[in-house]
Amino acid sequence: MQVVTSLAGESWEIDQRVKIGIVGGGQLGRMLALAGYPLGLTFTVLDPAADACAGQVTRHLVEGFDNDTALARLAADADVATFEFENVPVAAVRRLADRLPVHPSADALEVLQDRLTEKRLFQALGMPTAPIATVDTRDDLVAAIGSVGYPAVLKTRRMGYDGRGQYRLQGARDITPAWQRLGGSPLLLEGYVDFRRELSLVAARSVSGDTVFYPLTENTHRDGILRTSRVIHDGMLQASAERHAHALMRRLDYVGVLALEMFDKDGVLIANEAAPRVHNSGHWTIEGAVTSQFENHLRAILDWPLGRTDARGYCAMVNLIGVLPDWRELLGLPGVHAHSYGKAPAPGRKLGHVTIVADTESAGDDLLAAVIRLVAN
Amino acid sequence: MQVVTSLAGESWEIDQRVKIGIVGGGQLGRMLALAGYPLGLTFTVLDPAADACAGQVTRHLVEGFDNDTALARLAADADVATFEFENVPVAAVRRLADRLPVHPSADALEVLQDRLTEKRLFQALGMPTAPIATVDTRDDLVAAIGSVGYPAVLKTRRMGYDGRGQYRLQGARDITPAWQRLGGSPLLLEGYVDFRRELSLVAARSVSGDTVFYPLTENTHRDGILRTSRVIHDGMLQASAERHAHALMRRLDYVGVLALEMFDKDGVLIANEAAPRVHNSGHWTIEGAVTSQFENHLRAILDWPLGRTDARGYCAMVNLIGVLPDWRELLGLPGVHAHSYGKAPAPGRKLGHVTIVADTESAGDDLLAAVIRLVAN
Repeated sequence: MQVVTSLAGESWEIDQRVKIGIVGGGQLGRMLALAGYPLGLTFTVLDPAADACAGQVTRHLVEGFDNDTALARLAADADVATFEFENVPVAAVRRLADRLPVHPSADALEVLQDRLTEKRLFQALGMPTAPIATVDTRDDLVAAIGSVGYPAVLKTRRMGYDGRGQYRLQGARDITPAWQRLGGSPLLLEGYVDFRRELSLVAARSVSGDTVFYPLTENTHRDGILRTSRVIHDGMLQASAERHAHALMRRLDYVGVLALEMFDKDGVLIANEAAPRVHNSGHWTIEGAVTSQFENHLRAILDWPLGRTDARGYCAMVNLIGVLPDWRELLGLPGVHAHSYGKAPAPGRKLGHVTIVADTESAGDDLLAAVIRLVAN
Repeated sequence: MQVVTSLAGESWEIDQRVKIGIVGGGQLGRMLALAGYPLGLTFTVLDPAADACAGQVTRHLVEGFDNDTALARLAADADVATFEFENVPVAAVRRLADRLPVHPSADALEVLQDRLTEKRLFQALGMPTAPIATVDTRDDLVAAIGSVGYPAVLKTRRMGYDGRGQYRLQGARDITPAWQRLGGSPLLLEGYVDFRRELSLVAARSVSGDTVFYPLTENTHRDGILRTSRVIHDGMLQASAERHAHALMRRLDYVGVLALEMFDKDGVLIANEAAPRVHNSGHWTIEGAVTSQFENHLRAILDWPLGRTDARGYCAMVNLIGVLPDWRELLGLPGVHAHSYGKAPAPGRKLGHVTIVADTESAGDDLLAAVIRLVAN
């Protein structure tokens, strides 16, 4: 029995309901909560931003991730904790894990937070990757280019997302600006992969080790930000991606949803990145799959049976970036599902997404094209 | 711009999001909010019960429905208001409607709250009903039995739901106990309809008058409480039910979701009751229909385009009454969707529901049987 405070400042008691603590209060936390309420779960998020959009639908502790009092309060308010972005400080996750079960583990997070240890793990598991080299000094960078060649991308080992913390090198003239931009942090130089398309696989593994996989999506980006994801059905690629993800999750004793981003190069999957969380390329699962990635993440960390992951026909997702389209026009497209995260508009900001589910490929592609025209982002 | 208080007592600003006020904070209000958050809406519910389950996921004004200060605050906190149960005082809806748009209207509510005016309207619109007679005195009751015959059901004209406010008369010996139980309120005697099954139609009509209909469900009850609903596909009955609902909603200039409960007597639909709200027999639409009844209610009252209502294959719903089943076992049934309303268990209380969606009738019926076995309610 525990007394919590309502939105209106009133009180009531929670009885027999499982309480989830989430580090991070962005749209991923918001969608986790919206998926968990029907399961009878309750949610508290920890996020320093007073306007963190998950806080509109959950209890919200407005404190920094390294605030030990806030972490203790989150732990006291939860039976199980998780996180909704990969740049949460590992130390904070460890401090939480001293107090209650936290999934995924701090160890798994630590490996995947660092692009170097992540790629080395991919390689150790037999997954092809782009050629890589560690860069700590300017001399390292020059040497790395010697082994990796042009074009290449210099990346911070930590704290990158949505294309941030990256600098593309086309030739020797880019060395100085790249070093000026990123030098000082631990870095990684990645060779260029001449890929056909980017794919991702969303997978879930429960405390008991049960594992499920969603169908692959093909993703398009602009300015480093995901724009669209579309479910594809390719038995060979699917099997290959599942083998990789399964090996990775087993090795990490991973619990929760994980997204594996890969390049498709002539039918060979090149592992690019693994996100230890629910993932933007899995948002289509809310309406498109039998069980959403958000529900399966919660089932996984609670060691409940995982739900079916098959797609209900043609499924695609379009991100709403920077500005929301005319809502009436969008909802006027039949079969479209609109999601707004309740965030204030800002350039490059993910404000929502649209899911398209259709019975046939041609109907789905038509609807996808109509949404993209309307969204124009 | 408006400052609201979060679950944690913190504050933030709401910018450009449409605010919905709901009179009533039960599971229907909760599911309206959960359907509305992805659309970018925000919610405040008014309910005197501090533990009203919608309040776990919305702002919650803990005040009575006849408290004018609370109604004023709800109106100030909302752009549009609605209600989630049919026994809300009409006067409260009228007071709200002086301040902001309220859908459905107080006039529509008033007609449908009274079983007599409701049935008279059905009859005026050409819809068959059970034989009925008004009963205000014991002599009226005796006279009504003369015209209606046995068996018959004596019902309060107002405030009935889930079989409450009803007394069944099999013969003359039941007259005195029936009168002792219900006498004093305005009453109605209804003749018995020897029906094959109970069906219901969930419909939505927008401010602009656009109308959509979900497929009919066949419903089973026990102890006056809905236990199961299963989508049926019968073109003749569907067309007939839609004609009735369309006429009713037009006459009432109805806005929002309405459920029409009917008896199927040898292929003729006998109108029994219209609920001016989202309805338990429409809960399957959350996962089973392209657009849920909750989303379409919100679209309707906001005059947004209504969403597609077709069923995604076999769909059925089982209510969870009094006690929740083993959650792991339930979620272990593949393709089952579990809903808990976050309510404390109590005999006869609706605590949640389970939706079954399947590709084939036989797979669906098997799953439905498995859920019913597990739920055993």
